[in-house]
Amino acid sequence: MTDEAATRELLVELLGEFWRRGWVSGTGGGICGPADGGGLLLAPSAVHKERVRTDEFFTVDPSDGRVLRSPDRADLRPSECNSIFCLTHRTFGAWSVVHSHALSAVLAGDAVAADGADHLAIRDLEMLKGIPGVTNTDVHLVPVIRNTPREPELVRQLEAAYADPRFRAARAVLVRDHGAYIWGADVLEAKRHTEVYHFLFEATVARRGRKVEERT
Amino acid sequence: MTDEAATRELLVELLGEFWRRGWVSGTGGGICGPADGGGLLLAPSAVHKERVRTDEFFTVDPSDGRVLRSPDRADLRPSECNSIFCLTHRTFGAWSVVHSHALSAVLAGDAVAADGADHLAIRDLEMLKGIPGVTNTDVHLVPVIRNTPREPELVRQLEAAYADPRFRAARAVLVRDHGAYIWGADVLEAKRHTEVYHFLFEATVARRGRKVEERT
Amino acid sequence: MTDEAATRELLVELLGEFWRRGWVSGTGGGICGPADGGGLLLAPSAVHKERVRTDEFFTVDPSDGRVLRSPDRADLRPSECNSIFCLTHRTFGAWSVVHSHALSAVLAGDAVAADGADHLAIRDLEMLKGIPGVTNTDVHLVPVIRNTPREPELVRQLEAAYADPRFRAARAVLVRDHGAYIWGADVLEAKRHTEVYHFLFEATVARRGRKVEERT
Amino acid sequence: MTDEAATRELLVELLGEFWRRGWVSGTGGGICGPADGGGLLLAPSAVHKERVRTDEFFTVDPSDGRVLRSPDRADLRPSECNSIFCLTHRTFGAWSVVHSHALSAVLAGDAVAADGADHLAIRDLEMLKGIPGVTNTDVHLVPVIRNTPREPELVRQLEAAYADPRFRAARAVLVRDHGAYIWGADVLEAKRHTEVYHFLFEATVARRGRKVEERT
Repeated sequence: MTDEAATRELLVELLGEFWRRGWVSGTGGGICGPADGGGLLLAPSAVHKERVRTDEFFTVDPSDGRVLRSPDRADLRPSECNSIFCLTHRTFGAWSVVHSHALSAVLAGDAVAADGADHLAIRDLEMLKGIPGVTNTDVHLVPVIRNTPREPELVRQLEAAYADPRFRAARAVLVRDHGAYIWGADVLEAKRHTEVYHFLFEATVARRGRKVEERT
Repeated sequence: MTDEAATRELLVELLGEFWRRGWVSGTGGGICGPADGGGLLLAPSAVHKERVRTDEFFTVDPSDGRVLRSPDRADLRPSECNSIFCLTHRTFGAWSVVHSHALSAVLAGDAVAADGADHLAIRDLEMLKGIPGVTNTDVHLVPVIRNTPREPELVRQLEAAYADPRFRAARAVLVRDHGAYIWGADVLEAKRHTEVYHFLFEATVARRGRKVEERT
Repeated sequence: MTDEAATRELLVELLGEFWRRGWVSGTGGGICGPADGGGLLLAPSAVHKERVRTDEFFTVDPSDGRVLRSPDRADLRPSECNSIFCLTHRTFGAWSVVHSHALSAVLAGDAVAADGADHLAIRDLEMLKGIPGVTNTDVHLVPVIRNTPREPELVRQLEAAYADPRFRAARAVLVRDHGAYIWGADVLEAKRHTEVYHFLFEATVARRGRKVEERT
Repeated sequence: MTDEAATRELLVELLGEFWRRGWVSGTGGGICGPADGGGLLLAPSAVHKERVRTDEFFTVDPSDGRVLRSPDRADLRPSECNSIFCLTHRTFGAWSVVHSHALSAVLAGDAVAADGADHLAIRDLEMLKGIPGVTNTDVHLVPVIRNTPREPELVRQLEAAYADPRFRAARAVLVRDHGAYIWGADVLEAKRHTEVYHFLFEATVARRGRKVEERT
């Protein structure tokens, strides 16, 4: 099995797992991974992600998002995540990016919005060590950007967040009312970061609820 | 495989998935889909929906709910959803309707009842884009009707809700203390709307709880 | 396949499902069903219930709990539920009884204890119709008894609850700090009641939390 | 199949189950079990635990943690839990230790920290009987230690907790902001204790939330 064939199978498996956890649902959310020859494999837009088959990915050129190879079905278009996935690849060398629509990401974003901040500060959690170069004694900052009507319009805000030195350690960006982008050097690292950040979002939401309760 | 055979398999698969998520349970809840020749495939009443087999669906005439074809088991009756599914088909051309008994639908209905309103207003969520013609900057109104002792008696309230111009974009109706009806042009669209609306109900319930907490 | 062979397979399947939902765990919880010839099939004590095999059930005489047939493993003893399952069978003719260790049952019992009551009153939920003879406009009363160090010692309290005319419609008893017993005429009816009551317990706990929040 | 081959299969199965429940995630968490000849089987470090294969375990000498046998892949290192698993084995004769990263363990630790205590006191739960020698009328004390940057540095705190007579009945230690270590005489007992303690942590968190709510 070529590397790309194995990647296609892994992407299909992970889309199923993310769907079972509610991180992709209602045709929203997605993931990309490396194609042989330097392209990015991208799921189609507007399809049930857990039903995508290994022969239904697009291959795009990460330098500009141009479609290099299409699946053999005329009704499919490449995912709207295309420009964001390519930007994230070019900025960090990330060969895999996950787009999550998890409720925990939305609620973590709500908490930040209530504070009027532009980032989520996460501390006091062993799980922080799952992010490269971060340890459990760090305060880890995750940028939070505003949602916009179409996903490509998020690109400008993402460029600013990616360039901000406060967020150098982050492997995720929260989008308010929407979800998160989470990336890694390869598909399995992106999977690890996806599990780590969802745990961090859930812990943030649970601890914040508790703190308010105990103050009353 | 004929279209209808594929639809029967898909309906069985989705009933299992909805049951695993708690959207159908205790023999409650259900789904219909298109039969070959213009009928609607309907699960039997009072059976464990995740145990329904492909040969156990009724075929009904959506113009009046009359049974066109029965499964080969004398102990089965067509689902009580029959008249509601047929009404929804005639009103919107929906070939698939889901009846959910999810706790999140009940709790979202409770929130509306506490406000004395006849609808749930949902805003500030990217997931709204999963509903045709709706975008994340809209305030999306879902009608909420009162529960009645028998499901066919819900029909009159549904007719009024379906005709109300405030709810033109809605693909769902909440029934207080009971659940929701959610529909789509075909089975996969109904599945997408079902995932989208359950996310919206869960987000509504979680955000509402949080808002009250933070006010204290 | 004989009726008993099918029942053994169904019991094994349901133990797996209940375990995945957290209703049996840590070797606690269980289910019984009808054996050919009028006995009750009973899982062994102190084993991981989702790992029980079809040939590991005991057959007991429901008139006195005497073991009629043992599995072919000397290290197994019949479940501690034996006397309660037999009592429930003799009182109601129930051929299947589920013992749940669900957290929602414990929390529903806590709510009752906080009120100083000996029962849980459930109302305004369509799911009530899943219990024979109950409709969604009824106030359904479920008895709540105190926990005791050993399960057979619960028998006296259960006898009183089973005889109490206030609880005639109940197919379940809550045991504080412990869980619930839920029964049906056959295994599939017990399964339906198990799903229905867990929904009712979860709804009770969620609504009660919400009511307190909104009062603050 | 040798005992060790069966143990390797059981460990792989349990890692998958713990991952599905969120008790191990993001490459964190783990389990050990007995190797033939008196060693301990240990998963590799920094790998997705639910993807570990039966031939990827290390065998270590529990008297000092020395690696006796390595898997046939040069890129793998033994889990960081090595020294803690070996300490737990030497202290209690435990042949299986689970390291959980569950959110419920973190939140239960938070509750203790808010009280300024060095242990969690659990009472009034039938599930306590799942721990050897404990009954539902006992107040069961679980030690809680502080998290440290690296797992081997937890060893000193663990030695003190293991020697403390107040915690003689405990089969678990909570690590604040991190998770828990849970053990048993063999793999299936460790599994039982793991399910029991996670239930106890979840019940503690839920009851504590409720108590605060009802005080308001």
